[in-house]
Amino acid sequence: MTRFADPASFAAALAALPEPDEASRTAALNRQARLTKPTGALGRLEDIAVFMAGWQGSERPEADPVQAVVFAGNHGVTAQGVSAYPPEVTVQMVANFEAGGAAINALTAACGARLSVVALDLDRPTGDITREAAMSAEECLDALNQGAAALGADTRLLLVGEMGIGNTTPAAALCAAVLGGSAQDWVGRGTGIDDLGLSRKAVAVEAAVALHSGAATDAFETLRLLGGREIAAMAGAILAARLARVPVLLDGFIASAAILPLLRDNPRFTDHCIAAHCSAEAGHVLLLDKLGLEPLLHLGLRLGEGTGAALAVPIVRGALATHNRMATFDEAAVTDKA
Amino acid sequence: MTRFADPASFAAALAALPEPDEASRTAALNRQARLTKPTGALGRLEDIAVFMAGWQGSERPEADPVQAVVFAGNHGVTAQGVSAYPPEVTVQMVANFEAGGAAINALTAACGARLSVVALDLDRPTGDITREAAMSAEECLDALNQGAAALGADTRLLLVGEMGIGNTTPAAALCAAVLGGSAQDWVGRGTGIDDLGLSRKAVAVEAAVALHSGAATDAFETLRLLGGREIAAMAGAILAARLARVPVLLDGFIASAAILPLLRDNPRFTDHCIAAHCSAEAGHVLLLDKLGLEPLLHLGLRLGEGTGAALAVPIVRGALATHNRMATFDEAAVTDKA
Repeated sequence: MTRFADPASFAAALAALPEPDEASRTAALNRQARLTKPTGALGRLEDIAVFMAGWQGSERPEADPVQAVVFAGNHGVTAQGVSAYPPEVTVQMVANFEAGGAAINALTAACGARLSVVALDLDRPTGDITREAAMSAEECLDALNQGAAALGADTRLLLVGEMGIGNTTPAAALCAAVLGGSAQDWVGRGTGIDDLGLSRKAVAVEAAVALHSGAATDAFETLRLLGGREIAAMAGAILAARLARVPVLLDGFIASAAILPLLRDNPRFTDHCIAAHCSAEAGHVLLLDKLGLEPLLHLGLRLGEGTGAALAVPIVRGALATHNRMATFDEAAVTDKA
Repeated sequence: MTRFADPASFAAALAALPEPDEASRTAALNRQARLTKPTGALGRLEDIAVFMAGWQGSERPEADPVQAVVFAGNHGVTAQGVSAYPPEVTVQMVANFEAGGAAINALTAACGARLSVVALDLDRPTGDITREAAMSAEECLDALNQGAAALGADTRLLLVGEMGIGNTTPAAALCAAVLGGSAQDWVGRGTGIDDLGLSRKAVAVEAAVALHSGAATDAFETLRLLGGREIAAMAGAILAARLARVPVLLDGFIASAAILPLLRDNPRFTDHCIAAHCSAEAGHVLLLDKLGLEPLLHLGLRLGEGTGAALAVPIVRGALATHNRMATFDEAAVTDKA
């Protein structure tokens, strides 16, 4: 199990990421060329099969077990009136996850993924990022490690979701701090805030970036100053997955923002990630574009919880079902193209 | 079971299409507003749940049984050198479907759909549409009826695929005849034809449209003159589904072209259809735009067989899983937006 002893060991892990197995990728590519279809006719399914083969080190990779983890955290910045919902909804929704009543419960059941929920100190919101650091170094390290610890030993495909009233504000701040642009470029309506709230959100992001961006020079410090517990936990889980060569279906705006500081420190960081969807949250289109990721789905979701990633699981299953189960031209005695 | 006695009864059915149940739609909309998520946060999943509720006449609709049918036909126009594969591949691929080795077998198994294959007189290709009608009135009526007969009595969601070497050519001809535009607007590379073949295809489409478009004045005649057996069968199945209020996941370019003549005769025809995906076949983007349909998936597929529709089944399942299984704000004691 991955555990980072200190910020330096986190940075060291991030600097020495494993790569996919090229021999397995090549074998999978060769298999694709022999299956009973014109080469390329399954589009992104073919890419996904080859991607999975590389990370799993197998010509015929499998998706199961698929693991979903939802991390929950609370945010001091809600004091700035940045959310349409009160902060107590975070703990209420965790209870809803545990009782099986949330969207992610329905979707993980439908796609055959194991679901667990990690609530991170919900009674201790992070610092208000417009005035202070979100977390101490110990708190941030603990969140990263709770994220890393959540990865199951036998997981073959990971999806990571979040719940945290107010968390599109630190996510937007992470984007503005790492990628630049104005606060307006990165703030959106989250759970559905009105125009005035959206203005307050932009003001909060601007203040947070002005306060912290000078010191947000590496991934750890950026997550610590501007992130949140569930955001750091997502980053920790996605890094742990990479260290174990487990592919990740990346959920929405928060998940993409969570890994942005890691990608700045290592430009290959997203190589094990597939962007599951593009959400309706305003900044996500731009963020995916900056990450260089082409999302699988465009369904107008803006819920978080890992819902977009769960909806993409069957696409991966479809890619592997065709890759593993289709007959070759020879096996089926079908005439190939002249 | 739907059976059209003659072209006039086909036209009469098309003129008197059933509509969805508004009370069930309203009940489903009201349920969506009470589920533990911001209203609208599940994007298109919410629309799909309400759509299914209306057609099924139930506040809590179900998808199962999901039925997939692949129709296969052969085309005289292959004599014009319009395909990268020889016409004998159609019958070889039908054997592959029956043996379980094709992409649609893997994908229907993965998404839990029943699959059947209907081969339509493969030893009797249609007439070469550049020189003569594709079918006689009897042949076209028979194909429509074979399509309609394929709909299962208990099917709740239908997807219709096709196999037919050369069939992107009649599909392009149907588009050009019904929607106008040049042959070049509608022809694409199909299974992967080269530049010279693509030119031959455009010439063939132009010739077919010039020969038949004057007489292609209604849906039946358009399908008869310019279509193909599997194309007419798809149209028959999708019409029969409408008459039974069964929603349809529309596959790619051929499926969309097959229903275009029906949509011309009744502008509400696609109300029971969801465009499953936008294929990589060149004309499909434009065709979906003209049909006014927003596809669920953009995965660069160009295989046919119903593969794109099968990949969209889990999206419908996800929509219904959230709609039917999520807790309401009251049930979960979660505070709703102020």
